[in-house]
Amino acid sequence: MQKKVVIIGGGFAGVNLAKKLAGHESFDVVLVDKNNYNFFPPLLYQVATGYLETSNITYPFRKLFRGKKNVMFRLGELEEVIPEQKKVILSTGEVSYDYLVFATGCETNYFGMENVEKYAIPMKTVSDALQMRNTLLERLEEASREEDPAERKKLLTVVVAGGGPTGVEISGMFAEMKRTILSKDYPELKGAGGEIYLVDGVKSVLAPMSEKSQQYTFDTLTKMGVKVKLNVMVKDFVNDTVYFADGSTISAKNLIWAAGVTAMTFKGMPQEAYGRGKRLQVDEFNHVQQDIYAIGDTCIQLTDPAFPQGHPQLAQVALQQGDNLGKNMIRGLQNESLKPFSYVDKGTMAIIGRNKAVADLPKPKLFFHGFIAWVMWLFIHLISLINSGNRMKTLYNWMIAYFTKDQSLRMIVRPASKNL
Amino acid sequence: MQKKVVIIGGGFAGVNLAKKLAGHESFDVVLVDKNNYNFFPPLLYQVATGYLETSNITYPFRKLFRGKKNVMFRLGELEEVIPEQKKVILSTGEVSYDYLVFATGCETNYFGMENVEKYAIPMKTVSDALQMRNTLLERLEEASREEDPAERKKLLTVVVAGGGPTGVEISGMFAEMKRTILSKDYPELKGAGGEIYLVDGVKSVLAPMSEKSQQYTFDTLTKMGVKVKLNVMVKDFVNDTVYFADGSTISAKNLIWAAGVTAMTFKGMPQEAYGRGKRLQVDEFNHVQQDIYAIGDTCIQLTDPAFPQGHPQLAQVALQQGDNLGKNMIRGLQNESLKPFSYVDKGTMAIIGRNKAVADLPKPKLFFHGFIAWVMWLFIHLISLINSGNRMKTLYNWMIAYFTKDQSLRMIVRPASKNL
Repeated sequence: MQKKVVIIGGGFAGVNLAKKLAGHESFDVVLVDKNNYNFFPPLLYQVATGYLETSNITYPFRKLFRGKKNVMFRLGELEEVIPEQKKVILSTGEVSYDYLVFATGCETNYFGMENVEKYAIPMKTVSDALQMRNTLLERLEEASREEDPAERKKLLTVVVAGGGPTGVEISGMFAEMKRTILSKDYPELKGAGGEIYLVDGVKSVLAPMSEKSQQYTFDTLTKMGVKVKLNVMVKDFVNDTVYFADGSTISAKNLIWAAGVTAMTFKGMPQEAYGRGKRLQVDEFNHVQQDIYAIGDTCIQLTDPAFPQGHPQLAQVALQQGDNLGKNMIRGLQNESLKPFSYVDKGTMAIIGRNKAVADLPKPKLFFHGFIAWVMWLFIHLISLINSGNRMKTLYNWMIAYFTKDQSLRMIVRPASKNL
Repeated sequence: MQKKVVIIGGGFAGVNLAKKLAGHESFDVVLVDKNNYNFFPPLLYQVATGYLETSNITYPFRKLFRGKKNVMFRLGELEEVIPEQKKVILSTGEVSYDYLVFATGCETNYFGMENVEKYAIPMKTVSDALQMRNTLLERLEEASREEDPAERKKLLTVVVAGGGPTGVEISGMFAEMKRTILSKDYPELKGAGGEIYLVDGVKSVLAPMSEKSQQYTFDTLTKMGVKVKLNVMVKDFVNDTVYFADGSTISAKNLIWAAGVTAMTFKGMPQEAYGRGKRLQVDEFNHVQQDIYAIGDTCIQLTDPAFPQGHPQLAQVALQQGDNLGKNMIRGLQNESLKPFSYVDKGTMAIIGRNKAVADLPKPKLFFHGFIAWVMWLFIHLISLINSGNRMKTLYNWMIAYFTKDQSLRMIVRPASKNL
């Protein structure tokens, strides 16, 4: 008897699980996602800034699982789970399951600040990245026509909220673009001012990394012209002003919100299933309840003594959990004993700019920075892309960007929005 | 005294004119466009079908004219001309001119059919192409979930209206994709039917080309599985049905509209300035009135005895008119006598599919078809791209497409649409 495994979400965790089960004819896998493509979040910021194309970091699910007869793709968003009937209701219809796996990831957390949710630019999805690209290019155009210097400066000022890798990467990139591109493409804006701020509520950037990494990143960003403000919490964003809890303000049209994520709750799942940050509580086998599992950012596992607060919400955890759950499903079917999940930390890294990055390795405990960390970052991110086509295209775009100190993807493009 | 030349529209004609004047410090050029990028319309259909990326055929104006100190770019749409005050009102403010040049091209003509305008997919802009890609991919997903065979067939049936190069190219490409990709990526759709129609109101496809080209194209498309219906006029498109003037109908969810274009009229220009198809009437120097000129698709020149009905609306005409007007402006400034425009026909061609194309050369009168015409088509379109970067990327994508008989750009992507 085939077991029908329905995986909700095709990110790192979901795709890795589907890959594990692909070809095992005992499983009939349905991968559900609200997009028809997988994407690589670590390079989203390069799409947002026009250094990479969408297609470099995305890949259609149907092509990914082409030829895998036991893996089907279903476009749709999860609306409700009905555990008693073992089925899910999607925006595009119903699907029944033997095993249901939540691999739904996270979404942007605005911490209840309505104006921030309304007017800030998030950085979590491909759509977000394209919107950021379009919006910032439009602001540049607007600034180039604006005659009031104060208004112009506001249009050109960007506040990046969130000192994690995304915030660091994006503010570093803006600083470089300001130097290499702005004066060439926008001669009207010469001397117009405009600042790049990176702000965070905690006392350092890249909070989970080593102190050395934090210090190097802070110093490097500052040297690049980014104004790093720490220990400040954004409170509101109205009238082109970012308000902080300590009473200070910054005049800016552009607030980029990379300050937090939250898991999502789903109708049909009991309240007590959720833990901190709305993450589904799982045991060491990523089991939630009955025939329901959860993997990746959307789950929290409190069984690992090394991570009493749960694992960090990182790609590596998601990849490894997808892999382990897949293996356990196969083991279960063959009546072998299941292996509890155990996280192998392969280190963390962040890129700051051209020839500048930081990397912390856990065993042996090592810290790299500058050019060598930058090469490591590029290499690891390149090989982590989903297939050779995307690797080739990304490498090509990186080489162009490196040698020309520029890239030509600054087109404001939107699909027409006829209601067909 | 510098002369301020305002060019409305950065297509073939407008960009060629701006290039001609770039570097001539006697001219202060403002290039106005509603997009911040130039694009290459002949390859739009490959963006629409996911064979090329937007960035392969687009390029930002600011980068194109980088370093040309006398050429400025201005994002905006023309709203009104006030000839008495020598200024234009754009959606983004006012600009005064000494010379105004309309290079505004054409837009899709629905011939007053409201439902067609509302529900058909046009193919004239980059936004249109991306919408087509997204819409058709969504229809495939919908079909893969649909259980009613009749509904499924409608979702999979595409009617391409317009037997010009765009219609031929797009229906040929669909026929190939149906054969090479559909069965692999959508195993659910095996045997689901779905047809590709190419329809036109005249008695042949590629009406302006030679009879040999028309016949070869008709035969080739038919062999590829495209149902070519000629001498039929679309009358309406409601309830998933395309209605023709002769009473016949086709059940289809997808109507692609490549059946006609029209120039646009602008507030402030007198009614009598427009000729057939709303094209601005110009003399042999592309002069409309006072200090106003028009070049490319948006103008009609009735002074060339070889073209008593005006020139065809082709890229070659637009390019040559932009060039000639630029030279004449420079001549005028140097008090040299102006040269009337004279069109050099370099031939016409159309691609039908892999290894299949047609080409008519005028002098000597030659007809090529099949593999040799296909190579010619690829070569000419490749070298016509705006810069080496776009040529490289297009060549790369074509090679991938050729050798894999596939391409992996079938992602449904839209920028987020927050109202920032």
